Amino acid sequence: MKLWDSRFQEGLDKFIEEYTESISFDHKLLEEDITGSIAHLKMLNKCGIVNDEEYAKIEKALLEILEEGKKIEKFPIEYEDIHTWVESKLKEKVGNIAGKLHTARSRNDQIVLDEKLYIRRKIKEIVNELEELQKTIIEHAEREIDALLPAYTHLQHAQPISLAFHLMAYFYMFERDIDRFKTTLKRHNKCPLGSAACCGTSIPIDRFTTSRILDFDEPTENAMDTVASRDFILEVLSNCAITMINLSRLCEEIVIWNTDEFSFIKLSDRVTTGSSIMPQKRNPDVAELTRGKAGRVIGNLVSLLVTLKGLPLSYNRDLQEDKEPLFDSIETTINAIKAVNIMLKEATFLRENMRKQLEKGYVEAADVAEYLVKKGVPFREAHRIVGKIVNYLDRQNKKFKELSLEEYKKFCDLFEKDVYEISDVEKIVDSKKSYGGTSRELLREQIKNVKMKKNWQ
Amino acid sequence: MKLWDSRFQEGLDKFIEEYTESISFDHKLLEEDITGSIAHLKMLNKCGIVNDEEYAKIEKALLEILEEGKKIEKFPIEYEDIHTWVESKLKEKVGNIAGKLHTARSRNDQIVLDEKLYIRRKIKEIVNELEELQKTIIEHAEREIDALLPAYTHLQHAQPISLAFHLMAYFYMFERDIDRFKTTLKRHNKCPLGSAACCGTSIPIDRFTTSRILDFDEPTENAMDTVASRDFILEVLSNCAITMINLSRLCEEIVIWNTDEFSFIKLSDRVTTGSSIMPQKRNPDVAELTRGKAGRVIGNLVSLLVTLKGLPLSYNRDLQEDKEPLFDSIETTINAIKAVNIMLKEATFLRENMRKQLEKGYVEAADVAEYLVKKGVPFREAHRIVGKIVNYLDRQNKKFKELSLEEYKKFCDLFEKDVYEISDVEKIVDSKKSYGGTSRELLREQIKNVKMKKNWQ
Amino acid sequence: MKLWDSRFQEGLDKFIEEYTESISFDHKLLEEDITGSIAHLKMLNKCGIVNDEEYAKIEKALLEILEEGKKIEKFPIEYEDIHTWVESKLKEKVGNIAGKLHTARSRNDQIVLDEKLYIRRKIKEIVNELEELQKTIIEHAEREIDALLPAYTHLQHAQPISLAFHLMAYFYMFERDIDRFKTTLKRHNKCPLGSAACCGTSIPIDRFTTSRILDFDEPTENAMDTVASRDFILEVLSNCAITMINLSRLCEEIVIWNTDEFSFIKLSDRVTTGSSIMPQKRNPDVAELTRGKAGRVIGNLVSLLVTLKGLPLSYNRDLQEDKEPLFDSIETTINAIKAVNIMLKEATFLRENMRKQLEKGYVEAADVAEYLVKKGVPFREAHRIVGKIVNYLDRQNKKFKELSLEEYKKFCDLFEKDVYEISDVEKIVDSKKSYGGTSRELLREQIKNVKMKKNWQ
Amino acid sequence: MKLWDSRFQEGLDKFIEEYTESISFDHKLLEEDITGSIAHLKMLNKCGIVNDEEYAKIEKALLEILEEGKKIEKFPIEYEDIHTWVESKLKEKVGNIAGKLHTARSRNDQIVLDEKLYIRRKIKEIVNELEELQKTIIEHAEREIDALLPAYTHLQHAQPISLAFHLMAYFYMFERDIDRFKTTLKRHNKCPLGSAACCGTSIPIDRFTTSRILDFDEPTENAMDTVASRDFILEVLSNCAITMINLSRLCEEIVIWNTDEFSFIKLSDRVTTGSSIMPQKRNPDVAELTRGKAGRVIGNLVSLLVTLKGLPLSYNRDLQEDKEPLFDSIETTINAIKAVNIMLKEATFLRENMRKQLEKGYVEAADVAEYLVKKGVPFREAHRIVGKIVNYLDRQNKKFKELSLEEYKKFCDLFEKDVYEISDVEKIVDSKKSYGGTSRELLREQIKNVKMKKNWQ
Repeated sequence: MKLWDSRFQEGLDKFIEEYTESISFDHKLLEEDITGSIAHLKMLNKCGIVNDEEYAKIEKALLEILEEGKKIEKFPIEYEDIHTWVESKLKEKVGNIAGKLHTARSRNDQIVLDEKLYIRRKIKEIVNELEELQKTIIEHAEREIDALLPAYTHLQHAQPISLAFHLMAYFYMFERDIDRFKTTLKRHNKCPLGSAACCGTSIPIDRFTTSRILDFDEPTENAMDTVASRDFILEVLSNCAITMINLSRLCEEIVIWNTDEFSFIKLSDRVTTGSSIMPQKRNPDVAELTRGKAGRVIGNLVSLLVTLKGLPLSYNRDLQEDKEPLFDSIETTINAIKAVNIMLKEATFLRENMRKQLEKGYVEAADVAEYLVKKGVPFREAHRIVGKIVNYLDRQNKKFKELSLEEYKKFCDLFEKDVYEISDVEKIVDSKKSYGGTSRELLREQIKNVKMKKNWQ
Repeated sequence: MKLWDSRFQEGLDKFIEEYTESISFDHKLLEEDITGSIAHLKMLNKCGIVNDEEYAKIEKALLEILEEGKKIEKFPIEYEDIHTWVESKLKEKVGNIAGKLHTARSRNDQIVLDEKLYIRRKIKEIVNELEELQKTIIEHAEREIDALLPAYTHLQHAQPISLAFHLMAYFYMFERDIDRFKTTLKRHNKCPLGSAACCGTSIPIDRFTTSRILDFDEPTENAMDTVASRDFILEVLSNCAITMINLSRLCEEIVIWNTDEFSFIKLSDRVTTGSSIMPQKRNPDVAELTRGKAGRVIGNLVSLLVTLKGLPLSYNRDLQEDKEPLFDSIETTINAIKAVNIMLKEATFLRENMRKQLEKGYVEAADVAEYLVKKGVPFREAHRIVGKIVNYLDRQNKKFKELSLEEYKKFCDLFEKDVYEISDVEKIVDSKKSYGGTSRELLREQIKNVKMKKNWQ
Repeated sequence: MKLWDSRFQEGLDKFIEEYTESISFDHKLLEEDITGSIAHLKMLNKCGIVNDEEYAKIEKALLEILEEGKKIEKFPIEYEDIHTWVESKLKEKVGNIAGKLHTARSRNDQIVLDEKLYIRRKIKEIVNELEELQKTIIEHAEREIDALLPAYTHLQHAQPISLAFHLMAYFYMFERDIDRFKTTLKRHNKCPLGSAACCGTSIPIDRFTTSRILDFDEPTENAMDTVASRDFILEVLSNCAITMINLSRLCEEIVIWNTDEFSFIKLSDRVTTGSSIMPQKRNPDVAELTRGKAGRVIGNLVSLLVTLKGLPLSYNRDLQEDKEPLFDSIETTINAIKAVNIMLKEATFLRENMRKQLEKGYVEAADVAEYLVKKGVPFREAHRIVGKIVNYLDRQNKKFKELSLEEYKKFCDLFEKDVYEISDVEKIVDSKKSYGGTSRELLREQIKNVKMKKNWQ
Repeated sequence: MKLWDSRFQEGLDKFIEEYTESISFDHKLLEEDITGSIAHLKMLNKCGIVNDEEYAKIEKALLEILEEGKKIEKFPIEYEDIHTWVESKLKEKVGNIAGKLHTARSRNDQIVLDEKLYIRRKIKEIVNELEELQKTIIEHAEREIDALLPAYTHLQHAQPISLAFHLMAYFYMFERDIDRFKTTLKRHNKCPLGSAACCGTSIPIDRFTTSRILDFDEPTENAMDTVASRDFILEVLSNCAITMINLSRLCEEIVIWNTDEFSFIKLSDRVTTGSSIMPQKRNPDVAELTRGKAGRVIGNLVSLLVTLKGLPLSYNRDLQEDKEPLFDSIETTINAIKAVNIMLKEATFLRENMRKQLEKGYVEAADVAEYLVKKGVPFREAHRIVGKIVNYLDRQNKKFKELSLEEYKKFCDLFEKDVYEISDVEKIVDSKKSYGGTSRELLREQIKNVKMKKNWQ
């Protein structure tokens, strides 16, 4: 059964039918398809195209179809797509008046509607999961504010920081992810229905009514643009890719922190797996897999960009390829956020191992330079002096705190006894009081403000 | 000369120096670097870290350096990057106090600032060029409102439309492109300066002052996030890619319309090129090249996504690879919009050839179906009937208007004489009165409203 | 049931179990997994690690498991992956001796083996399908050798050619696709089994035996490389992407040729679909969808490139993400080739419409230039002269053949009466006798040779 | 000056001229362009189209132009492309006979030739650099054969290996990279020249002669395919991307090994850089930057895939976009290999730190399992037993070697005194005697064989 076959002498080749069908994946839009159909029906009724009795019958049938569809595991591919399946079922239930539902509607605008409704529902889920992850971050941050570790640049020890500070970096990354998704939702919150095949309809419908029923801000402005454009999906895919990039970075850190060499984190048994040959392994699979899945989501974005490149207006069948990347990206992203959240929630940070790393090397170097700056030495000169001290320490195999004041003064006579205060990593951390710095006072305040703003607890 | 070499015993290998330098491309940020430096300087002065005299000297020198730098074609790579070059020049001019400028600043936050300022400047340019292109579209739309042609789906004739309607589809596509760029600008309008290497500073600076001077909304909230994140660039690259996709579609249409077979458009000599062997060619090079350049911009987006994937916090040298894709995408996008605008502005639409196509085939089929719907036939049934008529016409090698009323009635006895009105394509076009449809009345109103809203003329 | 859980206190979190499972897709490797297991078993038997009785028992059970597995639609995800499922079934059937099969084998080398066997099987299928498509091309080429049409550059009429010539371009494109797949197969035809987890085994196995049984050239040379590398998959994905690019170009041409404006091709009902609203449409869906699917396959390639980027040796769980892009690319490519072949096989070329296009414009221009070259005019000068003639013709609204000899001579007095022979497109086509040119004689010979070489017919 | 402008009334718009020019990058093909032109000239001479005197004059002029061109930094964009520039210079030098050189040649086939020659030259360079890197690997492998460290899976300690074994994994990865480049060269070693615009020529040229002069195997078989296809470039880009992926993995390991926490490697000052604010840093910039550049090269591959998707035959201006990704990928890849080689050559491996890691954890676990297998326990059962032992050791905070034989026997009574031999990591390493395993004896032999085969030293 096809919606368009009256004109054809000969049926589709069996293999081609399989090749071109989409019901095996677009059945995910069943709920949206029914919601959209009911809204369209209401509008047709309001405009006098469908009478009250027809309205009642069709609506009832559509709701039944929804329930029946939800139970189906595998839709028969002869129906080509979910819209056709719904319409066929409807015809079975209400007879020929089923054919009225498609008045002033084409699959071209219908599919865009379904996708927009799907995206709306799923973006809410993504935002929700991201906020759950942020809460976990906040909890750890509050708990770990006194856990000090090196900040890393180039994966080299840079300066001492609070673990809370490190974690809050991710809080803000995810905050922008959330904002991106919300913006996308807002920008495309216009109702496509009623654009019909690609140029509107002569039937006297009211697109504003449909738009209102479906909680859109207004109808889309140009029917051709409406059925031909998929930038709303590209944006979603791009947002998902960026979120996955952010997750991949957190996961990379967890993989590294979970090594025997770093040993900064202990993951719970509930998220680690073992080896089929080496019984001792505790593998950070969730972190690795999520890092790997960044590739998948980036691939999806590329795939739709390629598909859209160079397509003339308006609808082309190539556009059928928009759905799988969309579904896969959204589901992968939601699952990845959830999985990372579970992993993080149950993780234990090994504070002493972190702290131990601060004793290696020269993490106070930048602070010794800033010490000199405060005494009036131009920064670049201070930096040069400290560079020389580090060289000296390295050759002598010494630490800053093992340097005598005399030795200090050989490099610059502005050094005084108070330079030894710098060797206290707590003080170093708390001295970073510039807005956005790692000082624990600032962090506490920031966390408090964030919770207030988010209305958490 | 390097900013960090006091610690090292041995210089960089010559080849490695070339391999790691960035001045050959980041010199594009010279202007932003100076602007940022002066703002930073003002703040240092306000905070008492740099006195008035030093301030005056350094600012004057920086402005001179800007002028000198603008004249340089090729910066010497020994300077590694543009920041180092500026600082070296500054030292030459003002001596050791130059070293004060780097107080509470690292190249890590400085480069993010430069990039944000660059993006701000360039996004304004992109938006401006997109609006110029929109104006050209509007001009054509006003002029071509009575030029009728088939709308295409699957590159097959669908239904008759006004050329203005087709062109306005692009207007709305570009309108969303503009909105995307503006949103990106707004979301990231936070000042990175003062984040220092990655965790803030103990020097008593005031990041809000710097932020205000540079027209940001506020400083960024976490120093580590600030120096490690490049999602603001990913967004720009994604926006550019989507814009290029939209342009590639318009260009594809121009290539097709420019064929001898379609002959819907004539491009001006000023934008077409010939062949080195076939003297008669008039090649739509701008359209082809722009379509091709979509690949380039998508490639840039992919390249940065790959680079960022799996990077631990905070700064890693990999991030140096963010600049070339950024510069290239922005410049390519701006130039592509400009070039397409020039091509379109001087193009002539060959109305008669368009109109001729409407006579072929059965573009009124959907309207005949809607005719029956208005007489009470359920749409699906109407569609089926018309499908059969088309089959009949095809076999008889006839057009709709050549069908006698008797023949019509064989398919459905609701057909009456008024069915012949449908063969008038003007009437078909104007009957599409649903919001966003192709009716010329709607189009005229829409164009008027758009111009009012945009405050054009 | 997991292969590694003896060490763990607590089971996997339910959601994480779902997140990390792979059986829902790697069950596609069941057949390969069994084949590999039997080969491994034979080797263990030969090396005295498994005795004859055990061998017989296990082999029998494995073959049963294969048959049982083939009938399963949905494998239970508790088994994590297909290897675990097989091993569990084996244990049910033969008890503890099942545990011997995993001797000197890890899932790390096992999965690489399965993938290599899968790729070998599927590449043969791809090559086969590509050759079927080539045969269709050859058939059309033989049939259409006298169908003349313009060659296009910039989608503009260039010079007259035989349709056979145009089609043969695709023959050679697909010939290189075939060669690429074959090369990939050859390069990676080394047996991974026996690499164990990542560094070999102390059990006295014989990898050369396994390799021989499984038709590999030799075992892989380094166990760590073996379990960590996926370049063999990247190559397959890259080959698939290039093949899809080639198909997308053919499909683009079919879409364009299928327009009302070109009308160069008629597709059969068995491969075209209609519209749900416009009854007259005959949409080239297969061509469009295939063009769109190029995006999907490129996306898959990108996704694995991203996943592999920056992974330390040896095995990381990220690698689990190699399978879905592999399966999807291979299946999509095979189906796309098949679908295009069906579409092409039943297509009819509309020779007269093609021929009609040759009468428009100035397709003989280049030949007029070559005419002058043969009379001794340097090519560039000849080109310039013909450019001027075309300009003149354009202004006069004339064709070359309508030009009097006098007029000709105004441009260059070397023109003689024989110039009029050029207006015969047959002669133009046949004059292109340089190797690889469109002369029909050359084409006939080429087709004959190709068929001989391929041993077709 | 354009090669095609005789037909046009009006010149190109200035901006469009800049937008469409390619000389700013295709001047890199100058040498290839001249080489190709001389070969073409020789053939024209042999075929009697250019006489001996003309031949001598033009060849001399071309060689002069090459020398002059080599000195030019910036070619004037009015020349559009390098071919036009060469032809113009030629005309200045030899007058009108310059115009003969373009006989039976179009820029369409000329550019493909230039690209093929460029690729041939550059692939040789890549192969050479990869072999240099392999030599460095071999040198380290020979030197570090007794340096033992854990193999990693999931970045977790797996089993003890020789560092030589780990390094040799990269040897084989690069060996396949080399093979890929060589295969590509071989597959596409067919001469495009003489295909002319897209369908051959009526001028009696001899393509086999040109092919022979330029060291190709034969001429390409179809002129249309020749000018339209870029799969030879796609293959190069794909090969480069895979090589960069391999390099990115090595670089990731170097970054990790270079951390304070791992401390497995010391990089020389000549390849590390410092920080502008933290004087103590020794950043593994080359490793980071190379890892980052993988993104760039993948981006280039994507960009050309996108550009080619859906292009109708034959030449389209989009193809001009093939050059920059090609040049950039090749140069980036060559430089990256060189830079990594320099970094690696001067690196020192910190053997004691590696060895120290072997004392942590339970790296002998898999070997204890294999011990039981050798005593007849089915592997899976052995694995289960060892899993329990590890659990026990973990709770008792003990190592394997601290376990009494009594304790051992509680888990399985097949344990005997010889189990303690397993705690010797040297013995564990050397026990991995399966082909491709880490046994030092095998490694020594393998290295010897490789050097013999490669004829090194």
